[in-house]
Amino acid sequence: MNKIIEKLKSIVGRENVKTEYDEIEKYSKDETSSVEPSLPMAVVFANNTEQVSEILKIANEYKIPVTPRGAGTGLSGGAIPKSGGIVLSLEKMNHILELDLENMAVVVEPGVITDEIQKLAEEHGLFYAGDPASSESSSIGGNVAENAGGVKVLKYGPTAFHVLGLEVVLPTGEIVNFGGKMMKNVMGYDMIRLFVGSEGTLGIITKIILRLIPKPKYSAVLLTPFKDMETAVSCVPKVLSQSGILPTSIELMDKYSVEISSKFLNENIPQQGVDCHLIFEIEGLDKESLTKAYISLGEKLQQMGALEVYIADNRHQKMKIWKFRKAIAEGIIAFRPKHCMEDVGVPIKSIPTLINSTYDIAQRNGVEVLNFGHVGDGNVHVTFLKPENMAEKQWDEAMHKCLEELYCVTADLGGTMTGEHGIGVKRKDYLRIFLTQTEIEIMKKIKQAIDPNDILNPDKIFPNEF
Amino acid sequence: MNKIIEKLKSIVGRENVKTEYDEIEKYSKDETSSVEPSLPMAVVFANNTEQVSEILKIANEYKIPVTPRGAGTGLSGGAIPKSGGIVLSLEKMNHILELDLENMAVVVEPGVITDEIQKLAEEHGLFYAGDPASSESSSIGGNVAENAGGVKVLKYGPTAFHVLGLEVVLPTGEIVNFGGKMMKNVMGYDMIRLFVGSEGTLGIITKIILRLIPKPKYSAVLLTPFKDMETAVSCVPKVLSQSGILPTSIELMDKYSVEISSKFLNENIPQQGVDCHLIFEIEGLDKESLTKAYISLGEKLQQMGALEVYIADNRHQKMKIWKFRKAIAEGIIAFRPKHCMEDVGVPIKSIPTLINSTYDIAQRNGVEVLNFGHVGDGNVHVTFLKPENMAEKQWDEAMHKCLEELYCVTADLGGTMTGEHGIGVKRKDYLRIFLTQTEIEIMKKIKQAIDPNDILNPDKIFPNEF
Repeated sequence: MNKIIEKLKSIVGRENVKTEYDEIEKYSKDETSSVEPSLPMAVVFANNTEQVSEILKIANEYKIPVTPRGAGTGLSGGAIPKSGGIVLSLEKMNHILELDLENMAVVVEPGVITDEIQKLAEEHGLFYAGDPASSESSSIGGNVAENAGGVKVLKYGPTAFHVLGLEVVLPTGEIVNFGGKMMKNVMGYDMIRLFVGSEGTLGIITKIILRLIPKPKYSAVLLTPFKDMETAVSCVPKVLSQSGILPTSIELMDKYSVEISSKFLNENIPQQGVDCHLIFEIEGLDKESLTKAYISLGEKLQQMGALEVYIADNRHQKMKIWKFRKAIAEGIIAFRPKHCMEDVGVPIKSIPTLINSTYDIAQRNGVEVLNFGHVGDGNVHVTFLKPENMAEKQWDEAMHKCLEELYCVTADLGGTMTGEHGIGVKRKDYLRIFLTQTEIEIMKKIKQAIDPNDILNPDKIFPNEF
Repeated sequence: MNKIIEKLKSIVGRENVKTEYDEIEKYSKDETSSVEPSLPMAVVFANNTEQVSEILKIANEYKIPVTPRGAGTGLSGGAIPKSGGIVLSLEKMNHILELDLENMAVVVEPGVITDEIQKLAEEHGLFYAGDPASSESSSIGGNVAENAGGVKVLKYGPTAFHVLGLEVVLPTGEIVNFGGKMMKNVMGYDMIRLFVGSEGTLGIITKIILRLIPKPKYSAVLLTPFKDMETAVSCVPKVLSQSGILPTSIELMDKYSVEISSKFLNENIPQQGVDCHLIFEIEGLDKESLTKAYISLGEKLQQMGALEVYIADNRHQKMKIWKFRKAIAEGIIAFRPKHCMEDVGVPIKSIPTLINSTYDIAQRNGVEVLNFGHVGDGNVHVTFLKPENMAEKQWDEAMHKCLEELYCVTADLGGTMTGEHGIGVKRKDYLRIFLTQTEIEIMKKIKQAIDPNDILNPDKIFPNEF
């Protein structure tokens, strides 16, 4: 082991290889609730692509597990290393390499915090349309590795749709490039979309070309309380097919989500006690047409059962609603640190069935639950909460039962186990609920073809016996 | 061979296996100019997924090459069979299986003509945003297999972005399903985007779930002549970053394209003799805001050097402009049947360099050329034309030289060999100009992992020695 540590130090410099417990402890986990941390042998900080390549050559030669890591904000345990392996941190590869206005593209290293890209784009009237809720703290490399979603997927699609090109270091240390500063490219298989969302198991992403689009100038946010979930959710497709508008976001908060956010912010929202609130954001070319559009949308929503429509069309009011929506997650972390946040997805129509099932599942297993998320694209953050008086061990058991029951319901509804957080280590043992042996095998064959020594983020995605 | 034909007949019925020259001759080619036809041993028409599965089991057992085929409108020779192999036609799997309005999705078989999906969606206020120029004649299975583009990619992205789910028959005959009626899904590798654009080399797509979005209600088309290419193209990023509008399309026609379309339609467009025309299409929430937007866009374009801005905001006028744009391809087929149509892509800024190079290349090799395409996404249909007095053999030689020179220029500009037509058989021997050995190898490893007997559309995509 010492020999390997020395080799790593010779590649990146002594100061960039950490092995002391105090220095590496935080690299044993990420922001995923309820998974076990695991200590690496060392944390290695790479400064450039060549170093990543040299590190992987060593790792491949000695069959050392390598877990790439960005900002460590993942929610599936994807950045948790294999015991005895190394963490390859890309935090120091945090440069925006080029803003190419003429080609509407930005070239970045993986360690750049996503919001920095957004700020730079906005200075030039442009916009990076991949925008996860974590954009203030997550790195773009992590967004790409997990194919992050967020509140704007309904209109703009997930991170994958904004990646124009990638530089990737393969497990062998070879450096490959796919794509470029163009939207369209069908030159062989879509390797970009294969590496995006591969959770660090196929290659280390060292450079990313992102698409920028015109920054939408006008937007409005509508907050709409509903007496019950069915009425709320059934509005969504009706509004979409009748309005001619594709909203940027359609978000849902159940009453328990509203409660926890309200408590965290010490603020109320209108009609706080009802079953659910929806949030719509729409964009327009100018103020007048936007006003017309939100008035028309508001009227339709009221006809369809919205108890009221609260409109926010200035920055302050809009921020206030989004702050409330984002405070759900903060409230959960602050008040209910023992929790299990999921991100199952189902066809829109089945959301009420899904959410009602979560209430049953929680009750049956003696835990609590709240639901919020991206109703426009079917992605719901079902979050189970440990009751205060429940013992840890009992919670662990209950949580696993809740997850299994949740996933079975989701699969029955034709849904997905994860819409934006990934499988990682947290969900891999449940994959069989959703995919057949053959479907998992075909993915595993790709993994084996690209990483035959299984050095890149091993023990992720695939169930144990694979 | 007879034994195999008998087995195939027992699967699909005698009437669905054709072996007579007259019946199978048309399956020896597709709509790709300048590639050699190749006769299959038989054409087999499948009626359902189970038949596809049984056919592939036979093919895999006896190592018979299988080339899947939709409507045969491809432009890379992707549907041209291997001599002695079979064509697996999906023309009879042409049913729209389900229109699910509540989940904003449509489930179709691969043989459905794309326009039929559009028409059905439009009846319900919805819209299928994948819309290749060939939508009246191409099948959705072909669109998916080639990851078709079209004139709306700038705003909506290529076909890949509209596919929510796939049923695929693997070369072993096993049936797998990925995705569902949800936009977001990060459950393992993105197998949907791997099969989309894989040109029939990894699996046979037997069912497709497509996303539908609200149908935009208002749109306008601007036709703008420019004295020179540089001025025209340099408008594109400026307009995008200053307007806050993401146009549906920004199309380019050089003067030779305008000439051939004009001749085909026997119609002129304004300022016909200038170097190039751009076409912009934008969408708005209502008539007033759209009017404001196109007036503002028109003013900006004139400030940036547009000689004039002709606005079409009623159906008839818009159709007229699009008809002119689409007649370029029809004119080429009618007047210049010996041609070679390409679809290289480069970063927007480099389009003038690319197009000017094509004029040089054509002149140097004694052929003619015209350029049109999707300037908003960098995708240009460089089309070389055989001069009338040139001998066939000389044309073949000149064309290959032109292609090689075009691809070298494109690669130097950081571009792609194909933005929407695919590699197929036509472009495979040029792949090395764009990708390194390692980059091609990594794709080949995926092919080998999924189709170890190389029965699915062999001799496509990869250069011969791979």
